[in-house]
Amino acid sequence: MGGAVRYIVGVDLGGTSIVVGTMPEDGSALHAPQMRPTPVSEGPDAVVKRILQLIDRSTTAARDKLGDIEIAGVGVGSPGPLDTKAGVVIFTPNLGWRNMPLRDRISDGTGLPATLDNDANCATYGEWWRGAARGADLVVGLTIGTGIGGGIVHHGRIFHGASDVAAEIGHMTIDMTGRLCKCGNYGCLEAYASGPAIAARARENVQSGTPSALPEYVRGDLTQITAQVVYEAAADGDELALEVVKDTAKFLGAGIASLINILNPEVVVVAGGVTLAGDRLFTPLKAEVKRRAFRPAVDACRIVPGALTGTAGVYGAVAAFKAQMWDTV
Amino acid sequence: MGGAVRYIVGVDLGGTSIVVGTMPEDGSALHAPQMRPTPVSEGPDAVVKRILQLIDRSTTAARDKLGDIEIAGVGVGSPGPLDTKAGVVIFTPNLGWRNMPLRDRISDGTGLPATLDNDANCATYGEWWRGAARGADLVVGLTIGTGIGGGIVHHGRIFHGASDVAAEIGHMTIDMTGRLCKCGNYGCLEAYASGPAIAARARENVQSGTPSALPEYVRGDLTQITAQVVYEAAADGDELALEVVKDTAKFLGAGIASLINILNPEVVVVAGGVTLAGDRLFTPLKAEVKRRAFRPAVDACRIVPGALTGTAGVYGAVAAFKAQMWDTV
Repeated sequence: MGGAVRYIVGVDLGGTSIVVGTMPEDGSALHAPQMRPTPVSEGPDAVVKRILQLIDRSTTAARDKLGDIEIAGVGVGSPGPLDTKAGVVIFTPNLGWRNMPLRDRISDGTGLPATLDNDANCATYGEWWRGAARGADLVVGLTIGTGIGGGIVHHGRIFHGASDVAAEIGHMTIDMTGRLCKCGNYGCLEAYASGPAIAARARENVQSGTPSALPEYVRGDLTQITAQVVYEAAADGDELALEVVKDTAKFLGAGIASLINILNPEVVVVAGGVTLAGDRLFTPLKAEVKRRAFRPAVDACRIVPGALTGTAGVYGAVAAFKAQMWDTV
Repeated sequence: MGGAVRYIVGVDLGGTSIVVGTMPEDGSALHAPQMRPTPVSEGPDAVVKRILQLIDRSTTAARDKLGDIEIAGVGVGSPGPLDTKAGVVIFTPNLGWRNMPLRDRISDGTGLPATLDNDANCATYGEWWRGAARGADLVVGLTIGTGIGGGIVHHGRIFHGASDVAAEIGHMTIDMTGRLCKCGNYGCLEAYASGPAIAARARENVQSGTPSALPEYVRGDLTQITAQVVYEAAADGDELALEVVKDTAKFLGAGIASLINILNPEVVVVAGGVTLAGDRLFTPLKAEVKRRAFRPAVDACRIVPGALTGTAGVYGAVAAFKAQMWDTV
């Protein structure tokens, strides 16, 4: 072990896209980031091939820039549930995989050591390591997109729980007789505040006759309303859209208040598309949390937007590699 | 440090009663337990005096039985919020205290080292150390009484959170537009499944005309209906009481399902009066959890009644003393 800096490749595998980047072990820079769609319909072999391609491209580009750097290994973040120790993706609805030995496939394909961890855990871990929650002893993260992913970081380590499935924060119940969630449960946070849920609530309001400019944003085709369209319309002052964002803040506020009462974290990081709504979301969200959670827990907690937009998962996959392989991050 | 066994005194201070006992450092027996009402209305000095009296009685009785044992110190569990490190009770609604340096008062009064921790944390810690959750790496505990207290034990330590107020499990939201809780929030688990909430739901059902034998249990005075009366009537087959117990199982099941999705614990310990309802409670509760939580998390988790009825807090206060003073339990 000379004094030379080692480099690590981070892979963030999602149902829509794959992001790969190369960074020095201290995470001080992200070199040669690559992003491509996930070829889900072509099956697991095609996805593995695409990942290996992107790793090759990223490390080659990093070497072109930095010279002959030493690559110590590859950290992979993947949707789960998965078995961290075995390196196996047990099941993922988005990719349609079962018992896929992803870690060893990546390791075999690159000739490098590899590790596997949950994508939402990695996103929170990245924010703790190099993002909005640096240095905090206890961090809860929510990544709001197609679903609501969650992560908990404690004492510098990902909190995995008894069987590697902790931090399914999107599936905490906020209204036990409420909306049916894709997971089969009623009233999950995700059923109210994920991107598609935000779009659905806006659409329902338009359909029930609430006046709004939203149809104009999608040329009258309401199926085209997405959460992003709602944020745009809210920024333009559309009252229905503003109301939908305010309701989103209430739902997230109720969920985050429960998390604060249960875990008493130092930082809650809210990441994903929803942060595009800015203060329009965060101001009522914080007010709702204050109304609902215990004062000493609220006072101890910062609620902040994610700082590593689009790359938190790559940073976290690298941090998880260090934690698993070297027991230090 | 000879080979002689050291003894530790555990104190469980509650709003209703104080329980004190003496045990060897390995927790293998509880000697000379003492229990007296908490003289809340007489103020903090009277409460401290009563605690000191009970410590003296317990250690004297233990010495009468065991000979001249060495007492290493006193572990105290108290309602909070409190500052564990400073040994100060910051505020407790039930006792009406503010900034009470309880640890030093007990230490000064006994001439022994003392520690302070939260009562609900201690109850869960006791169940982990010597009760229903022995040896588990991650335990969530709920103690159901006048309120719903909670505790989380991870890697053999109480999980305190950023400001010592973690595990306020009774105040997680299960229905964000639901019943008003004493804490000011709407839809807390405690507002549905605490002892008084169970009694209130039964009373409301009787008052709205549902046929039931419940009034006969309280000579027609519905204000006398308690959760315990509801369990008795349920055991006797009263349909309204059975329905109330089944609803309690659903509310607790929704809350515990969220905890399982968030924390993925090995064991959930449900303690307190509610366990008197036995399988009548636990069978539908487990079914509700299974319906709501993720399969790999449910499969990894045992849901069990507490094993240390009435003394879990004393065991846990002793374990917390060991953790704080000796860094080993």
